[in-house]
Amino acid sequence: MELKAIYQSVKQDLAKVEGQIKTVTEVDFPDLAELLKHILLGGKAVRPALTFLSARFYNYDLDLLLPMATSVELMHTSTLVHDDAIDNSSVRRGRPTVNSLWGEDRAVLLGDYLFAKAGEFAALTGNLRVIRLFSQTLQIISSGELKQTFDAFKLEQSRERYFERITSKTASLFSLSTQSGAILSQAPEESIQALKGYGTNLGIAFQVVDDLLDFTGTEGELGKPVGSDLAQGTLTLPAMLLLEQYPEDNPVRELFDNPDMPEAARQGKIKRAIDMVGSSSVERECYKVASDYCDKARRELESLPDKPVRKTLVEIADFVVSRKN
Amino acid sequence: MELKAIYQSVKQDLAKVEGQIKTVTEVDFPDLAELLKHILLGGKAVRPALTFLSARFYNYDLDLLLPMATSVELMHTSTLVHDDAIDNSSVRRGRPTVNSLWGEDRAVLLGDYLFAKAGEFAALTGNLRVIRLFSQTLQIISSGELKQTFDAFKLEQSRERYFERITSKTASLFSLSTQSGAILSQAPEESIQALKGYGTNLGIAFQVVDDLLDFTGTEGELGKPVGSDLAQGTLTLPAMLLLEQYPEDNPVRELFDNPDMPEAARQGKIKRAIDMVGSSSVERECYKVASDYCDKARRELESLPDKPVRKTLVEIADFVVSRKN
Repeated sequence: MELKAIYQSVKQDLAKVEGQIKTVTEVDFPDLAELLKHILLGGKAVRPALTFLSARFYNYDLDLLLPMATSVELMHTSTLVHDDAIDNSSVRRGRPTVNSLWGEDRAVLLGDYLFAKAGEFAALTGNLRVIRLFSQTLQIISSGELKQTFDAFKLEQSRERYFERITSKTASLFSLSTQSGAILSQAPEESIQALKGYGTNLGIAFQVVDDLLDFTGTEGELGKPVGSDLAQGTLTLPAMLLLEQYPEDNPVRELFDNPDMPEAARQGKIKRAIDMVGSSSVERECYKVASDYCDKARRELESLPDKPVRKTLVEIADFVVSRKN
Repeated sequence: MELKAIYQSVKQDLAKVEGQIKTVTEVDFPDLAELLKHILLGGKAVRPALTFLSARFYNYDLDLLLPMATSVELMHTSTLVHDDAIDNSSVRRGRPTVNSLWGEDRAVLLGDYLFAKAGEFAALTGNLRVIRLFSQTLQIISSGELKQTFDAFKLEQSRERYFERITSKTASLFSLSTQSGAILSQAPEESIQALKGYGTNLGIAFQVVDDLLDFTGTEGELGKPVGSDLAQGTLTLPAMLLLEQYPEDNPVRELFDNPDMPEAARQGKIKRAIDMVGSSSVERECYKVASDYCDKARRELESLPDKPVRKTLVEIADFVVSRKN
C-alpha cells in the first residue's frame, strides 16, 4: 500500500502542515529564507501524520494538533540538518545538503533556528505536558546521536546498545508524535501510554529497515548514497549480523579496524559488505526483527477504541516493513 | 564595583542555580557527563542574576524563578558551545573548548542537548508566555549568528547592521533574562516592557564592550585570544571606526580583502589593528557608545517601583562599561 492512500483520512490536515511550514520560510532575511526554502521541501510527513492519526480516537482539535504536527516535522528536519552537517553528507532526499551548499557552520545555525521554531510551534499548543515532552525528546535524540559518535568504529557493541541508540535517535520522535496527538485529544492515560508504545515500537522498526536499506537500497530510492552508515563507522543491525555470521575475513571488521584506509579501499569494503548482505540471510533476519517490532506496535493498539483509524495505524506498521525508501 | 558585591542580594539564589546546573551533569551516560562537567563550570552568571533581580520589584517566587534562571544560563552556555564549534575556537574562559577536545561534531550535539535542557527548565515555569519567549529568543540568536556568517569579511556594512546583529546575538538573551523575571513576578505590562528595554540596551552595551575588549584586553583577562573577531572576519564597532578613521593603509581592509593570506601575515594585520585601536580615539568612542546604551538602560528603570533592586540594576549597567573581561 502507498503512503498516500494510507494518509487519506488526514490528507487535508497534512496539507495544512505544509501551509504552516511555508509560513516558516517567509522571513525578512533573504539568506535565511533561501536556506529554509531549500530544506523545508519534501519529506514523507510520517511524523505529522502520526500526530493527527493518534488524535482520531478522542477529541480531534485541529487548532491544537496543527501546531504540534508542524512542530514534529520541523524537529525532524532540524535533526536531519545537524546529522548531515556532522556526517559531512552531501546528498539527502536526492538533493544537495545544506552543509554541502552553504557550509557546515550555517547548517549548524540553521538547525538551531529550526529547533527553536519547532519549540515555538509546540508552545502554541499551550499544553505544558506536550511542551516538556518536546524538550525531553530533543535531549534524548541529541544524546542518542552523541552515543553514536562515541560508538563509531567500535566492533564490540551489544545488540542492546544498538536498540538503545535507535530508540533514542529515531523512536523517541515517533513516540513524541503519537503521544502528543493522544495528549492533545484528551485521551485517557491508558490510551496515551498505548500510543506511546505504538510510536516507540514503530520507530524502532522504521530505523531497523532504514539501516537495512542502507545496504540493500539504491541511491535513487534512498535519495542518498548507499553504505553511508559503514562509511561513518556506525555499526547497525545488518553489520552486526554480518560480523556474527562471518567472523573471519569480514569487510566490516577490516573497515572498522582501519578507519583511515584509502578511499578506494574503503569503497571496496563497503561494496563487499553490501554484496554479503544481499547473498546472506541478513536481509531476512532484519525484516524479521522489524516485523516483530511492528507486531508489538500493532498489539499496543488493541486497547484503543475500535475506530477506523486503528486500521490506518496498522497499515502504517505494514508500510514500514515494506517500504523501499 | 565587583560583580560579586553587586549580586549580594541574589547570591543565595545564584548558588541554587549552580546546584540545578550540577544536577544537569548527573546523567547515566559517562561520556556525556564528562562533556557536561567540562562546559558547565565557570561563567559570570550575569543572565540568571538579571532574571532574579528583575523579579524583585513584584512577587518574587523562587519556585518559578529558579528554573528560568537556570534556563537562561544553559541557553547561554549552549550558544557558546555552538559558536566555538563554528569559529573553531580553541580556548574559552581560559580552558580548552569542547570542539578542541572532543571535535566539532560532538560540540554540535552537546549544544543541542543543552538547548533542549534549557527548554525543559523554561517549561518548568509553567508560564506559556515565558516558554514562547524562550523559543523566539533562540530563533533570534541563531538568525543573528547566521547573519554574522553572511556578513563575514564584508567591509561595506552599516552601523545599523552591526547593532541589529548584536541585538540579535547578545541583547536578545539579556532581554529574555530580564523580561522573564518580570513576567514570572507578575509585574504589570508597563514594567515588563521597561525591564525588557533595560535588558536589551544593557545587552547592546555589553556586546559593544565585548567587541572592544577583543582589541584592548589580554588573553589572560579574556580567557581567549585577542583579535578573534578580526580573525573570523567579523566586523565589529572598533573595526568600523578604524576603517572610517584610517581609510588608507588600513590593516582591517587588507585582512578582509585577502581572507586567505598566510597565517603570519594575518597575525601581523591583527596586531597592527590592535595597536591602532590603542593609539587612536576608537577606544574612547566605543565606551561612549556603550555608555549611551547604558544610559538608555538606566532610564528604562525610572518607571519601576523605587526599591533597592533598582540601584543594583544601575550598578550592573555601570559594571558593564567598566569591566575588563
